[in-house]
Amino acid sequence: MKTNMMAEMTWVEYQNRLKTEPLAVLLPVGALEQHGHHLPMGTDHLLPTAICKGIADRVPAIVAPPIAYGYKSQPRMGGGNHFPGTTSLDGGTLTLVVRDIIKELARHGVKRLAVMNGHCENLFFAIEGIDLALRDLRYEGINDLKIVRFDYWDFTTPATLDKCFPEGFPGFALEHAAVLETSMGLHVFPELVRMERLVDDLAAVFPPYDVHPTRQEWVPPSGVLSPAKGATVEKGRTLFNEYVDRISDALRKEFAEAA
Amino acid sequence: MKTNMMAEMTWVEYQNRLKTEPLAVLLPVGALEQHGHHLPMGTDHLLPTAICKGIADRVPAIVAPPIAYGYKSQPRMGGGNHFPGTTSLDGGTLTLVVRDIIKELARHGVKRLAVMNGHCENLFFAIEGIDLALRDLRYEGINDLKIVRFDYWDFTTPATLDKCFPEGFPGFALEHAAVLETSMGLHVFPELVRMERLVDDLAAVFPPYDVHPTRQEWVPPSGVLSPAKGATVEKGRTLFNEYVDRISDALRKEFAEAA
Amino acid sequence: MKTNMMAEMTWVEYQNRLKTEPLAVLLPVGALEQHGHHLPMGTDHLLPTAICKGIADRVPAIVAPPIAYGYKSQPRMGGGNHFPGTTSLDGGTLTLVVRDIIKELARHGVKRLAVMNGHCENLFFAIEGIDLALRDLRYEGINDLKIVRFDYWDFTTPATLDKCFPEGFPGFALEHAAVLETSMGLHVFPELVRMERLVDDLAAVFPPYDVHPTRQEWVPPSGVLSPAKGATVEKGRTLFNEYVDRISDALRKEFAEAA
Amino acid sequence: MKTNMMAEMTWVEYQNRLKTEPLAVLLPVGALEQHGHHLPMGTDHLLPTAICKGIADRVPAIVAPPIAYGYKSQPRMGGGNHFPGTTSLDGGTLTLVVRDIIKELARHGVKRLAVMNGHCENLFFAIEGIDLALRDLRYEGINDLKIVRFDYWDFTTPATLDKCFPEGFPGFALEHAAVLETSMGLHVFPELVRMERLVDDLAAVFPPYDVHPTRQEWVPPSGVLSPAKGATVEKGRTLFNEYVDRISDALRKEFAEAA
Amino acid sequence: MKTNMMAEMTWVEYQNRLKTEPLAVLLPVGALEQHGHHLPMGTDHLLPTAICKGIADRVPAIVAPPIAYGYKSQPRMGGGNHFPGTTSLDGGTLTLVVRDIIKELARHGVKRLAVMNGHCENLFFAIEGIDLALRDLRYEGINDLKIVRFDYWDFTTPATLDKCFPEGFPGFALEHAAVLETSMGLHVFPELVRMERLVDDLAAVFPPYDVHPTRQEWVPPSGVLSPAKGATVEKGRTLFNEYVDRISDALRKEFAEAA
Amino acid sequence: MKTNMMAEMTWVEYQNRLKTEPLAVLLPVGALEQHGHHLPMGTDHLLPTAICKGIADRVPAIVAPPIAYGYKSQPRMGGGNHFPGTTSLDGGTLTLVVRDIIKELARHGVKRLAVMNGHCENLFFAIEGIDLALRDLRYEGINDLKIVRFDYWDFTTPATLDKCFPEGFPGFALEHAAVLETSMGLHVFPELVRMERLVDDLAAVFPPYDVHPTRQEWVPPSGVLSPAKGATVEKGRTLFNEYVDRISDALRKEFAEAA
Repeated sequence: MKTNMMAEMTWVEYQNRLKTEPLAVLLPVGALEQHGHHLPMGTDHLLPTAICKGIADRVPAIVAPPIAYGYKSQPRMGGGNHFPGTTSLDGGTLTLVVRDIIKELARHGVKRLAVMNGHCENLFFAIEGIDLALRDLRYEGINDLKIVRFDYWDFTTPATLDKCFPEGFPGFALEHAAVLETSMGLHVFPELVRMERLVDDLAAVFPPYDVHPTRQEWVPPSGVLSPAKGATVEKGRTLFNEYVDRISDALRKEFAEAA
Repeated sequence: MKTNMMAEMTWVEYQNRLKTEPLAVLLPVGALEQHGHHLPMGTDHLLPTAICKGIADRVPAIVAPPIAYGYKSQPRMGGGNHFPGTTSLDGGTLTLVVRDIIKELARHGVKRLAVMNGHCENLFFAIEGIDLALRDLRYEGINDLKIVRFDYWDFTTPATLDKCFPEGFPGFALEHAAVLETSMGLHVFPELVRMERLVDDLAAVFPPYDVHPTRQEWVPPSGVLSPAKGATVEKGRTLFNEYVDRISDALRKEFAEAA
Repeated sequence: MKTNMMAEMTWVEYQNRLKTEPLAVLLPVGALEQHGHHLPMGTDHLLPTAICKGIADRVPAIVAPPIAYGYKSQPRMGGGNHFPGTTSLDGGTLTLVVRDIIKELARHGVKRLAVMNGHCENLFFAIEGIDLALRDLRYEGINDLKIVRFDYWDFTTPATLDKCFPEGFPGFALEHAAVLETSMGLHVFPELVRMERLVDDLAAVFPPYDVHPTRQEWVPPSGVLSPAKGATVEKGRTLFNEYVDRISDALRKEFAEAA
Repeated sequence: MKTNMMAEMTWVEYQNRLKTEPLAVLLPVGALEQHGHHLPMGTDHLLPTAICKGIADRVPAIVAPPIAYGYKSQPRMGGGNHFPGTTSLDGGTLTLVVRDIIKELARHGVKRLAVMNGHCENLFFAIEGIDLALRDLRYEGINDLKIVRFDYWDFTTPATLDKCFPEGFPGFALEHAAVLETSMGLHVFPELVRMERLVDDLAAVFPPYDVHPTRQEWVPPSGVLSPAKGATVEKGRTLFNEYVDRISDALRKEFAEAA
Repeated sequence: MKTNMMAEMTWVEYQNRLKTEPLAVLLPVGALEQHGHHLPMGTDHLLPTAICKGIADRVPAIVAPPIAYGYKSQPRMGGGNHFPGTTSLDGGTLTLVVRDIIKELARHGVKRLAVMNGHCENLFFAIEGIDLALRDLRYEGINDLKIVRFDYWDFTTPATLDKCFPEGFPGFALEHAAVLETSMGLHVFPELVRMERLVDDLAAVFPPYDVHPTRQEWVPPSGVLSPAKGATVEKGRTLFNEYVDRISDALRKEFAEAA
Repeated sequence: MKTNMMAEMTWVEYQNRLKTEPLAVLLPVGALEQHGHHLPMGTDHLLPTAICKGIADRVPAIVAPPIAYGYKSQPRMGGGNHFPGTTSLDGGTLTLVVRDIIKELARHGVKRLAVMNGHCENLFFAIEGIDLALRDLRYEGINDLKIVRFDYWDFTTPATLDKCFPEGFPGFALEHAAVLETSMGLHVFPELVRMERLVDDLAAVFPPYDVHPTRQEWVPPSGVLSPAKGATVEKGRTLFNEYVDRISDALRKEFAEAA
């Protein structure tokens, strides 16, 4: 079976591709987190894994197993960590997971790594994991690993946002389990999207600060931060293809010059 | 879609099942590790995840996303950590991942947890993660989480071993990427098993000690510790069914009395 | 001397105020980081400390010594950590500092705490420090500490942004050592602002991803991410007063109901 | 404004001085800790910062922002950590702060560092931070950072002790918030010293051991370990000048030969 | 006094032997753990220390002080950690102790190290300590330390097992405080063995899984996992001599080629 | 065999004594460190263990296995960590060892613990270990463990110092491997003291500061910080008896009121 999924390959296939191609490894970093009444809790690792898979069909790349557990959900980004089902790691734990995986990939001889984040809250712990890995690798005398890191939604073009949000884009902050993720879900894992259970909550309105312990009453009971009813499979296809295309382009460009 | 995979469920479905069933969560702990020329590197998380799925069809249970990266491969158990592709975590990292996940499940209200290990080397770091989680949970006043932990192969009956190894069982120590795992693979993910690439190495012969740094010359170049050529899909089916049956029985028994 | 700075008070004064007022403690979290050729490296802790001082003249509050060293500067937020002078902590270190200070304040009997961030990159490590502190405090049986956390610039009103950026606001992302911080500096510590050394770099243009190790050529050599020449002391006064007013209001509201 | 305070300098000024002078960085390590009814809680970071400033006027040096939070107060050295206001870090946290700052300074190209301790209890955690930093720097191939570390009071001459304590010196152990620190305070921050509130406690008498949890009844209720009434601004000036002079001499001598 | 115990030697003697002999250091890793009513709690560090001492009379070697506290006792290996007297370290603590000691020995110039485990549960934490030490040593440029690691009982020959267990060997798993350890104790520290208090418990029967928190009722109340009444001083002498001989041989062979 | 050494007792004996006596546990914290040409490297754990043993003959107490590896030797206290043979732990490691042991003793039901330090440099890491243990124990609801902590030499009376140093006491700081420790050694382990190898170095003269990396030329090449030639077995006996007597008295007094 031809596969680009690292877990499905033998070590010999992996080694061969590393030796014969300008191979990149793609590492999806996700979460297990409530996504409303209609999206599966794995959304944040299932979507970036699917995008990575799409990219691996375009550029020489393989997809490492996703990090399926991420950092604690924040009320203003993901609804908060108090929902049942949301299963999060401490920040330090996530940092170490990212660090350890990167160091091992470098040991294998990987020179090109893309770390694709699918869960807002992971951002800085992934950055720290990358920084610690590169530091330890310098200690080993390994200086030629190039890492491209991003949140996949940052590749959305204004044109696509206009198309997806004819009445105006509320901002990525409130896009948890909302139009973007739901549309993507309809394209990527339609069998897991329960559109019939979509709750018609209003968009959350947050003040410009957090309160700890979490003020749960600020969060819509469904866990959805802004209405998802505008989601369609067409929008999902457009977004998905845009991410695959534009990220592939970016990686091609950045990795052209890697060792 | 009816599913027992936690990542595929919504938080509401999960919460409902927790409230209405004597639900167990099954957590597969695996690895990304060389498994010879013929088995995929994800073998150690793919197999226990499949067994967990089988169990969840028999007892009230859902399957958490597997921990796909495990502890460093040891020469006498998994061929050693020097192979390209083998991607391992530090012991402390794995311990923290296990600890954090368990604490979150307990926060959700889970009272029954099974931690199924699929990679020998994880054993003690999983135990320590469990111990640290239960300690922190005591601090929170949570004392009613019951955890059953095991290496799935410990449920093999002598009768099945006799059937699988008509010429005598070499011991679990050398069963890395060998008859047991290969047979299981033929049953669970036949499309990922490359029987035609099976290397005909002799069984590894190890002294009763380790040498660090790893003596790579002690390990068969293929990474297989004893010949896998006796593997068949029938043996795999027998083993798989035995694990599902016997572990289901054990969980039923142990969890009958849980809070 | 009447003072609201915790470091300048005796423990008896502090204890008296805690006992007799609905006292809040304000904790500025900053950095020591390059801020172009014209702003001092302490900008990110000097500004929030000054705002906290202003707040403490309006609401019953005292100001704890600022955390003067923050998380590593990121190219797209602060120019990157490669500049001489930028002196950063590992993420885990910053988390522990925040955690430890909060636990001590709670031990004193503090029920109201505001954590004011003045350095973008600190965000998640401060959040994690807060979360770990509240967890440990729960273990001690302390459940009545309420924490309000924010980045001070999130209190800027659209009207003020319009006034400060007559030609359009480039976004907070590029506002490192630029119009907002420079104007604030002219108001708060004019003797430390070297307007005559202002470099006339163009605004930085970043792709939607990071590259590690840092692509230093992406960052304007001065370290300023967008032109600061529109900065004036009037804008600084407006911003400063707006922050003091609006944050005081928010704290008054949130802390009214605290234990 | 000409300044030697690192937080008040631009990165360009800092870089220039590093390139053109045999520049030392001075890092004050202090605490936020009760100091009786008459001295401010910041005494242990305010005093060493002032001494560092004095030194930076004599030798080519700049002063890094002080570490304002230190290790837990011990009964026989600082009255114990049970006083409200005393805000301490875990030992490991302080070690990491010291380690991280030193590594960053070395990255800037600093070759001469003085770590001035102003809080007895910090001693070993600062030493460990230095040791860990130098170890990590060796891993980076940086071997030319020279660090001079001391508690500033160890530079007191017997002659000055005689002058300050005409009736005999009770030892540094009991000099918490007593004659030395109070006199220094009267010289350095007179507006923060409340001599009128000086409590006339007897000197503490401790057995040759600690008891945990702290025996609070062993500590004078004011938190002062021996009477401060002999404190004068003249003694403070003498001590301060002696520290500035003698430490400047020591640094000049030690750093003359640095890379 | 001629001694091979490192703690009894002066540093000059140690240095001389390191310089003039192909010296190995032997590090016993043990525990303080219940061993039934008849064996001392130090059994797991006393036995390997004695074996190391025996080896040091045969090959050029010295014995470092044993690590006297080990990892938490597991029900199926050592009866469980709930017994009074059993005094265990967290896994991470043990790992760091092993790591730190090894790094120091390497700094001294040691090239040959044997880590002898006397407590089953230590296995993986010792392995991780070794791995972390070798990693840090690589960072220092030290690559010539060779480490041989083992559980001493893995050197038992089948012939000896036959002799010790005329009615069949129950497996090492149940050999806690049973025939092997008791016989060894009778040979090595007869004055500490209370044969008259031997409890006549049946062998423990465990299912193929653990339950956490520990099911204490599964463990014989004495803490002995299988009957020890077959223990004799002759068996102990045979075992002890076999370990000394065979381990000496292995070390001679492995260390012949060390730097 | 009647013994007070915890490692030599069975768990049943230990449990019985805990139940029937107001039992204290004595924990010696030492080091493996150069002690000149004439004293063994284990001096700092051998001496406090012997004193503990003496105490346990006078008050109801047992002696836990000593912590045989301590914190890094400092030039002005122990000659520095650069000597071969000196085998030290990181500060954080030692803290965790102390923490873990204390928590386990408390789990057994111990209410009275004495932590006796025999190596100056351990001081603060032992204190932190105690503090962390008591914190964790509070989380478990255990609040009745009383800990007495000390450096044994702080129990020396002025009269004894006069007797031991007829020409004046140079201070404990320089008493490394000098008159006190050598005399004690002659009394406690005469067979391990090589008086004939005593080096006639002058006393070390240190400035009031440390330099890192260590200025090895400041330390007498023998590692002895002040001349040991005045050492006698009589002084050793006097010191030893004084420590046993006075510490026994202190423990009797402090523990009389423990739970």
